[in-house]
Amino acid sequence: MAGINQNYLKLPDSYLFSEIAARKRIYLEKNPGATIVNMGIGDVTKPLFKSVTDAMTAAVSEMSDSSTFRGYAPEQGYSFLREAIARNDYAARKCNISADEIFISDGSKSDCANITDIFSNDNIVAICDPVYPVYFDSNVMLGRTIVSMECNESGSFVPELPDKHVDIIYLCYPNNPTGEAITRESLKKWVDYANDNDAVILYDGAYEAYISTPGLPHSIYEIPGADRCAIEFRSFSKSAGFTGTRCAYTVVPKALKRQNVSLRDMWNRRQCTKFNGVPYIVQRGAEAVYSAEGRREQSEVIGYYKRNAAVLLDALKNNGITAYGGVDSPYIWIKLPEKIDSWTAFDMILNRQCIATTPGAGFGKMGEGYIRITAFGKYEEACVAGERIAEVLNI
Amino acid sequence: MAGINQNYLKLPDSYLFSEIAARKRIYLEKNPGATIVNMGIGDVTKPLFKSVTDAMTAAVSEMSDSSTFRGYAPEQGYSFLREAIARNDYAARKCNISADEIFISDGSKSDCANITDIFSNDNIVAICDPVYPVYFDSNVMLGRTIVSMECNESGSFVPELPDKHVDIIYLCYPNNPTGEAITRESLKKWVDYANDNDAVILYDGAYEAYISTPGLPHSIYEIPGADRCAIEFRSFSKSAGFTGTRCAYTVVPKALKRQNVSLRDMWNRRQCTKFNGVPYIVQRGAEAVYSAEGRREQSEVIGYYKRNAAVLLDALKNNGITAYGGVDSPYIWIKLPEKIDSWTAFDMILNRQCIATTPGAGFGKMGEGYIRITAFGKYEEACVAGERIAEVLNI
Repeated sequence: MAGINQNYLKLPDSYLFSEIAARKRIYLEKNPGATIVNMGIGDVTKPLFKSVTDAMTAAVSEMSDSSTFRGYAPEQGYSFLREAIARNDYAARKCNISADEIFISDGSKSDCANITDIFSNDNIVAICDPVYPVYFDSNVMLGRTIVSMECNESGSFVPELPDKHVDIIYLCYPNNPTGEAITRESLKKWVDYANDNDAVILYDGAYEAYISTPGLPHSIYEIPGADRCAIEFRSFSKSAGFTGTRCAYTVVPKALKRQNVSLRDMWNRRQCTKFNGVPYIVQRGAEAVYSAEGRREQSEVIGYYKRNAAVLLDALKNNGITAYGGVDSPYIWIKLPEKIDSWTAFDMILNRQCIATTPGAGFGKMGEGYIRITAFGKYEEACVAGERIAEVLNI
Repeated sequence: MAGINQNYLKLPDSYLFSEIAARKRIYLEKNPGATIVNMGIGDVTKPLFKSVTDAMTAAVSEMSDSSTFRGYAPEQGYSFLREAIARNDYAARKCNISADEIFISDGSKSDCANITDIFSNDNIVAICDPVYPVYFDSNVMLGRTIVSMECNESGSFVPELPDKHVDIIYLCYPNNPTGEAITRESLKKWVDYANDNDAVILYDGAYEAYISTPGLPHSIYEIPGADRCAIEFRSFSKSAGFTGTRCAYTVVPKALKRQNVSLRDMWNRRQCTKFNGVPYIVQRGAEAVYSAEGRREQSEVIGYYKRNAAVLLDALKNNGITAYGGVDSPYIWIKLPEKIDSWTAFDMILNRQCIATTPGAGFGKMGEGYIRITAFGKYEEACVAGERIAEVLNI
């Protein structure tokens, strides 16, 4: 008898965003013709940059000609992209990360979940609450012991250092879902803690491109010693509109070893065995993000989303709502009145204002009492949505 | 202290094809300007079909316009592709597989390895020898007990039914590396065995498109009862030149349950948690393979590779070499003279004829005494390579 992985039975019934999609479907069945303003799932709406689609069109053309056709890509990604990342995202910020420490992948979701493969199942895993559900679910699937780290307003949504032993620590800044960034000082405390305790930090920097406040760290490797304790995940999804195009990367420094084994070499072995690389066409598209024109387009699109966030945040605050994030992040974390729980708020805002949000409870126990909205929609929508959400909450 | 997954230390040092690539690099350093005829790694050489690149170019264009841009794809794949597969690869062969039992992915390598996630680690896994190394390595990474099933000439490279208890069985037909297909009668024995023993068959059909002998099964679901015991992996890599473009699919029938849990629902949960879908652009390309023009181009390209295989097989046999496969498969499995081991044969053929092959030992103990060659090269090369390889072996 083939036995199933019983840990799956401990998972919540459905993945958060599938549940939201289901509720939206039901709403649309009841309200045919309605157009939901989507501030729920963190999905971009602006098209791919012209520099990116030009590069991809050229790559498709290469793939149609036998003299330029490419078969299997290197599992780790093409050098042209790894080098561009090393130069632009690391050397330019004085981080000493080389191309062969960078692994191109189909997404940070995959990487954040798949990285669990290289660690033993007896590790104690520290995960923030509230949190992006993937870290939690992928460790539950392995039956690991999870220690919850509460993130609350008083701590600026950065958890306290653990008061009991942990081995692996997931951190995500700018944070999903709270939208708050981490300061250099706070991040340094975590790096020092990890080095003192031989823990490993899994640092999700998927929203790095939204940082504009001067002095904030853009990479964990800006903190001395991080190359001995941290793996960083970065993505083109939110920085260049790649949610439906799929390209990301993971950095595993050569200096990072545990039990005398290089984690970089383990991740390389994992990827060579269980992954076959990212489409050539997509890698050429990602490379174009680093061109002068790509940079200009990126700054324009991110500026657009950040303006949405600013407008939303202003409207909420002007209407007496407490909200966090939205400055160095596309996410705003809205505090609900005490009497309204987050799925109720989700339903109220959907039914009365036709706006989809994400209920905080979907991100963990500490997320109850909040909803997350995203700034990835249209400016015209952002101009009215803040007030409309406030209207529902100010009852 | 973060602990590593110690099972990784039990893996062979390097992945087979990385080792081959390394030996080729060394050869080229010693012989600058030489052009190696690549019959080693099973990688296609013909460009993508025009129907495919036309569809992809159109999709890139859609992604560049906000009115047609697409963000996150469904984790399971777009309906347009799942429906096309259900219709063309299953309904057309009278297999009762519906679109929601089909999961689009970035590759069969990923799927064959990731499917391990949904099973418990105490399963006994039966793996053929010789075999595609991914099945073996991905289970070693989990510390699972592996039972080796010997495949030899006398059994037409199909293993005997196990004489001891096993839970999960990997089968691949047309086979990699031996190039031999399986008959309906043989496959039925395995399906019946699995149903009688509540085992699960993981059926890798990546080379299905090369089957031309009438009466051979193209899908395991042509065998009655397979929907209660088998998961099938299929890929566009070898059927449509997608090795560098990445698209595949996995079928998990709803009827397949173990311990009262639907494996289809478990795989769905796994994919929703740890995967974010295949690029829209790539899925449109894969869909075009099923168009009338795509079908015509596919038949032409596969015909070309199959002609290569026929020419190679003829030359080897005419020169007194025993060889298998090459009829319903792009792979030929060459038997070596007793005095030559397979890495020696690899080095001899590389150094004397500038042809890269794959040493059988890389596929397992039973692969020793053989080398694998592929028919994915140029026809002009195929016309001379058979004789040249025979020349080295007939010493």
